[in-house]
Amino acid sequence: MSEIEAVREMLRAMTGGPALPDDQMRVMYEQWGLSHPLPAGAEVTNITLGGVPAEKIVTPGAAADTALLYVHGGGYVIGSAASHRHLVAALAQAGWMVGYNLDYRRAPEARFPAAVDDALAAYRALLDSGIAAGRIIIAGDSAGGGLTVATALAIKAAGLPQPAGLFAISPWVDLTQSGDSYTEMADVDLICSKPELDRLAGLYCGDDRANPLASPLKGDLSGLAPLLIHVGSDEILLSDALRLSERAGLARVPVRLMIAPQMPHVWHFFTTELTAAQTAISHAGAWMREHLG
Amino acid sequence: MSEIEAVREMLRAMTGGPALPDDQMRVMYEQWGLSHPLPAGAEVTNITLGGVPAEKIVTPGAAADTALLYVHGGGYVIGSAASHRHLVAALAQAGWMVGYNLDYRRAPEARFPAAVDDALAAYRALLDSGIAAGRIIIAGDSAGGGLTVATALAIKAAGLPQPAGLFAISPWVDLTQSGDSYTEMADVDLICSKPELDRLAGLYCGDDRANPLASPLKGDLSGLAPLLIHVGSDEILLSDALRLSERAGLARVPVRLMIAPQMPHVWHFFTTELTAAQTAISHAGAWMREHLG
Repeated sequence: MSEIEAVREMLRAMTGGPALPDDQMRVMYEQWGLSHPLPAGAEVTNITLGGVPAEKIVTPGAAADTALLYVHGGGYVIGSAASHRHLVAALAQAGWMVGYNLDYRRAPEARFPAAVDDALAAYRALLDSGIAAGRIIIAGDSAGGGLTVATALAIKAAGLPQPAGLFAISPWVDLTQSGDSYTEMADVDLICSKPELDRLAGLYCGDDRANPLASPLKGDLSGLAPLLIHVGSDEILLSDALRLSERAGLARVPVRLMIAPQMPHVWHFFTTELTAAQTAISHAGAWMREHLG
Repeated sequence: MSEIEAVREMLRAMTGGPALPDDQMRVMYEQWGLSHPLPAGAEVTNITLGGVPAEKIVTPGAAADTALLYVHGGGYVIGSAASHRHLVAALAQAGWMVGYNLDYRRAPEARFPAAVDDALAAYRALLDSGIAAGRIIIAGDSAGGGLTVATALAIKAAGLPQPAGLFAISPWVDLTQSGDSYTEMADVDLICSKPELDRLAGLYCGDDRANPLASPLKGDLSGLAPLLIHVGSDEILLSDALRLSERAGLARVPVRLMIAPQMPHVWHFFTTELTAAQTAISHAGAWMREHLG
C-alpha cells in the first residue's frame, strides 16, 4: 500500500465514526499531533508573546534573530500549540528559524476577532523584542492559514511593517464557503466537509463571516508581504487557495502557489507518514530563507 | 527611474503608434530579441527535429542527454527561434540543459494544428534520438505556453511518455478569451489586448478556438507532466494562468504557480533590462533541475 493510501485508510477510520464533541476532538487532535517526533535537538520553552501563551521552539542551527510565528489550524475551535508542535518544529528547522507556536484563544470560549487580536499582539511583541519585521515569517494551516492573512491585514491596518513573508497551508480564507471545490471535491476530501466548516464558522464569528478579518479573501490585499500558498489537489479548500492567489496577484502581492497532487488537507501534518510532507516542508523552508531580509 | 518603469516607457513607445502589418512585426520582434546578448560560451547550431527547423543551443555545463524543447510566443503568427534565442539560451543555462529552440510553422501561412503537429514531431524526434522522456522539459511563453500544454495533450493522445515537466510563461491557454483579467487588467497590460488576441486567434484557428489543442484549458489535463506556471500581475492573461493552475490541480497534475508583482507579459524576455527576469529564469532553472529524472 502506498504512503498516501495508508494515510487515507487512517483518515477514513478516524472520521468514519460518529462526530465527537469539540472538547474530545481537542484532546484527540493533541494526542495525534504529539505522536509525531520532533527534530533531533529541538528545545521547546513555554513563553508568552504580548500576553498570549506560546511555545518557543529552537532547533539546531536556527538564527536567533528570526521568528516563524505560527498559528495552528483547527477551525478556530480545536487544535493547539501542542497538536502542531511537530509541524512547527519541522518548518522552523527547514527555514533555519526560531519557531513561535501560538496558543491563541479559540471559539466558542473566545469568538472573533479574539484570534486575530492575539496574533497581532504576538507579532507586535516580537517587534518590540527587537526582531526586525524582515526577519519574521507568519505561517499557519487551514483556519491558521486564513488567520495568517487576516493578521497581515491587521498589521497593515495598525500601521506596522509587514513581515518578510506569509506562508499559508491549505488556507481557509472564505468562511462563506463559496468556492467551486466545495462541491467538486466533496467526495474526495476525507478531512473537511462543508457542513462541519459551516458549524465551525458559526462558532467563531456567527453571521460576521464576510468580515475581511474572518474571511481575508474579502479584504484589500494590497501591500501585504509575499505569499506562499500550499494546497492539496484532494481538498474542498483548493478553490480557496486559488482564489487567494488570484486576489493577491491582482493586488500585486508576490505569490507562489504549489498544488500537490493527491494530497489531503494540510498533509504537512503527516511528517512521519508522508514523504510528500517532508518535501513540502523543505520547499517552504527554502522559500522562507529566500525571503528573510 | 526603476527598471520596470523604464521597461514600461519602452513598451509604451513601441506599442503607442499605429499597428504594424504582421510581416513587419515579425522583423521587428526578431530585431528586438537579437539585441539581447547570449550567455557567454553559448553555441547555436541550426538543425531539424522531425523535419521542423530548430536551433540547438549548448551553454557551458549543459548535460548532453537533456533537452529543453522551447516553443516561442507571438500569437502563433509572429515570433521565431531568432526572436527568443536569448531567452532559450538563458533558460537552458539555468537548467543545465541543452536548448532546442523550435521554429514551428506559423499562421496564417500554416494554420492550426500545424504548430501542435510540429511540436509533437520535434518531441518524437528527441525521443527517437535516444533522449529519455524524463530528461526532457517542454517550455514556452504566451502562445508558446499554450502550445506547451497542447503538445503535452497531443503526447498523451499519441501514447508517448510525458516529459519530465512543462514550463508555461504567461500562457495563452484559452483562445475564447473568457478570463476575468481581460477586463480587470485591460488598462494595465501594455503588451496584449483582447482585440489583438482575437485577431491572432482568428488567423490561427478561425472558429475552432475551443478545440483543446488550441485552448488546452478546455482539455482533459489528467496524466500531464508537472507544470510550472509563471505570470505577471500586470497582464490580461493572469486569469489564464490561474485557471490553468486550477484545472491542472483538479486533474491531479503537480502545479507550481508564481505571480510576479508589477511584471508585464513574458517579462523573462527582458534579460538585460529586468533583474526580475533573471530571478524568474533562475527560479525556473531550479525547478527544471529538480524535475529531471
